[in-house]
Amino acid sequence: MTAGKDIDQWVTPEQLEVWRLLIRAQSRVLRRLEGDLLSKHDLPLAWYDVLVRLLEADDRRLRMSELAERVMLSPSGLTRLVDRMVEEGLLERTQAERDGRGFYAVLTDAGYERLREASGTHLRGVHDYVVGRFDDAELATLSQLLRRIDP
Amino acid sequence: MTAGKDIDQWVTPEQLEVWRLLIRAQSRVLRRLEGDLLSKHDLPLAWYDVLVRLLEADDRRLRMSELAERVMLSPSGLTRLVDRMVEEGLLERTQAERDGRGFYAVLTDAGYERLREASGTHLRGVHDYVVGRFDDAELATLSQLLRRIDP
Repeated sequence: MTAGKDIDQWVTPEQLEVWRLLIRAQSRVLRRLEGDLLSKHDLPLAWYDVLVRLLEADDRRLRMSELAERVMLSPSGLTRLVDRMVEEGLLERTQAERDGRGFYAVLTDAGYERLREASGTHLRGVHDYVVGRFDDAELATLSQLLRRIDP
Repeated sequence: MTAGKDIDQWVTPEQLEVWRLLIRAQSRVLRRLEGDLLSKHDLPLAWYDVLVRLLEADDRRLRMSELAERVMLSPSGLTRLVDRMVEEGLLERTQAERDGRGFYAVLTDAGYERLREASGTHLRGVHDYVVGRFDDAELATLSQLLRRIDP
């Protein structure tokens, strides 16, 4: 809401404007990044994110619950997404050996290859749309301010 | 990807860290805001966003295509969301009079009331999780940096 008691109490108009700028900047960047991945590699951004998280994990595998946490999806949302990626051969699901509870998502060679093809596009976007727009001092300032939000 | 040629070419490790900080800060804030709205008002953040956009619009109504653009959802995603909000009485759908093409989403009195109840919670969260963590000079700096991303 843009007017009234609640705003006067909690958030000034200037603060609200910065908040909206933050939301809008983030949304636009994510849409551009997803647009590039879809048009050049037919790969949704959420899929790219899953592939990266698995590449970075030990043995290229993560428990579904841990993967959901890292890509910030609900367990049910991640299950649907992983099912589709398994169908396309980018991931495998294996049962957790040690305690028999739950499943791992595992990066396949095809998944690795797909990620390798797409990563240049994605990182170029991260550069062009965001980090390449700042010099080192500005990046340090931005980093410092963001850590205030997410210590 | 965290290593290799592509990173060296487009994004330095320091740049990548700031990018990830930005993504993570945003995700955490949105999850906290949604958690507060769900626990206190049983209202998803996307619903709140739709209610606010309609409150701000002339006659508290927007064309579906315009609303989709403002809340940054796909047309099909917005249609599903609006359907559920209509079922709960928070919105109405009316046919566009002038040219007969498309539909408007319209805020109902019940929708306005639901927004009024929830707005204090939401704005308190925006204050506590984000804007209240900065002084005026820092907010101005943040604003200036964000405009570089989203001019």
